[in-house]
Amino acid sequence: MTPLLENAVKVATRDSRYDILIQPGLLATPAAWAGLPHAGGATQAVIVSNPTVAALYEAPLRQALAPHYAQVSTVLLPDGEAHKDWQSLNLVFDHLLARGCDRQTVLFALGGGVVGDMTGFAAASYMRGVPFVQVPTTLLAQVDSSVGGKTAINHPLGKNMIGAFYQPARVVCDLATLATLPPRELSAGLAEVIKYGPIADMAFFGWIESNLPALLARDPAALAHAVKRSCEIKAWVVGQDERESGLRAILNFGHTFGHAIEAGLGYGEWLHGEAVGCGMVMAASLSADLGLVDPAFAQRLQALIAAAGLPTAAPAMPASRWLDLMRLDKKASAGEIRFVLIEGPGQATVRPAPDALVSRVIERHSLPPAPAAAAGGTAGA
Amino acid sequence: MTPLLENAVKVATRDSRYDILIQPGLLATPAAWAGLPHAGGATQAVIVSNPTVAALYEAPLRQALAPHYAQVSTVLLPDGEAHKDWQSLNLVFDHLLARGCDRQTVLFALGGGVVGDMTGFAAASYMRGVPFVQVPTTLLAQVDSSVGGKTAINHPLGKNMIGAFYQPARVVCDLATLATLPPRELSAGLAEVIKYGPIADMAFFGWIESNLPALLARDPAALAHAVKRSCEIKAWVVGQDERESGLRAILNFGHTFGHAIEAGLGYGEWLHGEAVGCGMVMAASLSADLGLVDPAFAQRLQALIAAAGLPTAAPAMPASRWLDLMRLDKKASAGEIRFVLIEGPGQATVRPAPDALVSRVIERHSLPPAPAAAAGGTAGA
Repeated sequence: MTPLLENAVKVATRDSRYDILIQPGLLATPAAWAGLPHAGGATQAVIVSNPTVAALYEAPLRQALAPHYAQVSTVLLPDGEAHKDWQSLNLVFDHLLARGCDRQTVLFALGGGVVGDMTGFAAASYMRGVPFVQVPTTLLAQVDSSVGGKTAINHPLGKNMIGAFYQPARVVCDLATLATLPPRELSAGLAEVIKYGPIADMAFFGWIESNLPALLARDPAALAHAVKRSCEIKAWVVGQDERESGLRAILNFGHTFGHAIEAGLGYGEWLHGEAVGCGMVMAASLSADLGLVDPAFAQRLQALIAAAGLPTAAPAMPASRWLDLMRLDKKASAGEIRFVLIEGPGQATVRPAPDALVSRVIERHSLPPAPAAAAGGTAGA
Repeated sequence: MTPLLENAVKVATRDSRYDILIQPGLLATPAAWAGLPHAGGATQAVIVSNPTVAALYEAPLRQALAPHYAQVSTVLLPDGEAHKDWQSLNLVFDHLLARGCDRQTVLFALGGGVVGDMTGFAAASYMRGVPFVQVPTTLLAQVDSSVGGKTAINHPLGKNMIGAFYQPARVVCDLATLATLPPRELSAGLAEVIKYGPIADMAFFGWIESNLPALLARDPAALAHAVKRSCEIKAWVVGQDERESGLRAILNFGHTFGHAIEAGLGYGEWLHGEAVGCGMVMAASLSADLGLVDPAFAQRLQALIAAAGLPTAAPAMPASRWLDLMRLDKKASAGEIRFVLIEGPGQATVRPAPDALVSRVIERHSLPPAPAAAAGGTAGA
């Protein structure tokens, strides 16, 4: 066993086992690309990326794959959550069929969460399934979306509504790629890092509080620890409950409110991590209102989210719109919205809440409506 | 155990076990609809069908489901293979989301192979997976496509290229629905029935030869045996190899040539079963040319296919077009087409064949090209 694999975080579900490799410089590390499916034959590797990421990292990835596959080609998808749809997905299928790609083809998702989710669903569906490898280049993708096999595209009525549980063959997190991440995306990724504290590990939460300046300054050691500990927690949860029949739902802390923000504003207005950050503020506040956790804990969480450069006030939307959007959440059952709530620091629970209470939380944590209305008196509240 | 379930054909894959119920009048038999997933709660059942089938059988199915689900609704897809695409699939997602359907929703595929394949893929993908039940109303769907969990939509460049392996919770074959089947569709279904002989069971093949008049006259006892024996063979194969890593490919006998006919002519010109019938003639002929089986066997198969009312000569297409289309077959590997061939009656094998030999088979079994060219001398050949 090489040191590289010894340091790997292992994911084990009922049907699959794979490694998450975490280190700076993996794109140029031959061992990170050895031993993947269908290597060595007359097979094709297809890189799926977007123009921004490809400009930076496609050439090194191509070089890393060249020794292992007969052909390496690239398909570029339009950048951003607004394009996480069937039209973009079909660009992958068009490419694969035009190149005569067979079932021995391996897809490589080079990019953030949008590229990873779409590549994964394309791999799950092409000829009813070909292998794929996650090569996440954003903090959010490295700590959350590339791990665990949730793949999907959006529908105008709801986020991630069409997809599959489909595990990658490997996750390769080259920490050096985080150096080129725009600050807004770094903060968005920190939202998912912070998430692991309240739901599972308050020691980690304390570590994030202490090391936030280092994380924001992209200190390599701090980023390495944040990515590794996040992946360990996620791997542990996914190993217990791959298909989200129970425990896995806790990873959705902040996501019920967050998805409503994303769908309500139109995909791509807020980054996913921004919506989750604000959603966690709201979910913690709801937890406190329900008496599950001390209000001081909700305030401590809100302070960390704000310090990470994330929004803590939601866009103005009528409460009825919030409730309609959240009733389409995948955790909902029989018309009842189910929230991931904190019932003591480090421990999450999934349960419904009265609409009136939810509406009060929404009001408390939303920006005032458009200026004309705000002039009536709530401005500055 | 009720007699109904005692008579059922059982399917068992690594992750799922389900029954195929085969009997006339099941739509009106309460026991056929008892014990399905999520029954009895505040859950929704959604029937997916097409206008032709729904006019005949939607009302009885709705009545059968009403005692078990809080709401039953129906979404209709345009009829035919030409519409087995993303646009139609999205009609299902639109319906599910507009009605606020959650993960406890159960889909019911009421129709032939197109409805079954699309409903199955919609169920596999909606919220990353909800249960579905196959209610096949064509012979082809009852003996083949509804069993085994292959779901898919077509891509302009290849048939069933985008889909999932996703098993139904039950298959309910009401044999009475075969009474309303157009004769052309009855013949198309017989193609898949005949298929099971050469690949697995020559005693069954002999039975089909003897009972073809009864089958064409829709004799209930003959149809019941044909459906049951076909499902038994398919269930046995799928139980060995759900994901088509080996044995399952034999169920594709006739399909490599057949899919090329369907894609080459444009989906919906020929029925799937018609293309498979002609494809089996060609695959048997190729088997004989390769010395795997006696030419007399290929002729015997061709005679039965013709007697079943199926085409035995392919549409005129240049050999290069055939080869291009077949190189996209899902069994192909590294640009090499792999054919399901007969290596002795009742026994199939999967292997490549030289392009020149394949081209000769295509020429031998194709209609002459368009009249203008045919005037040159090949007419009547």
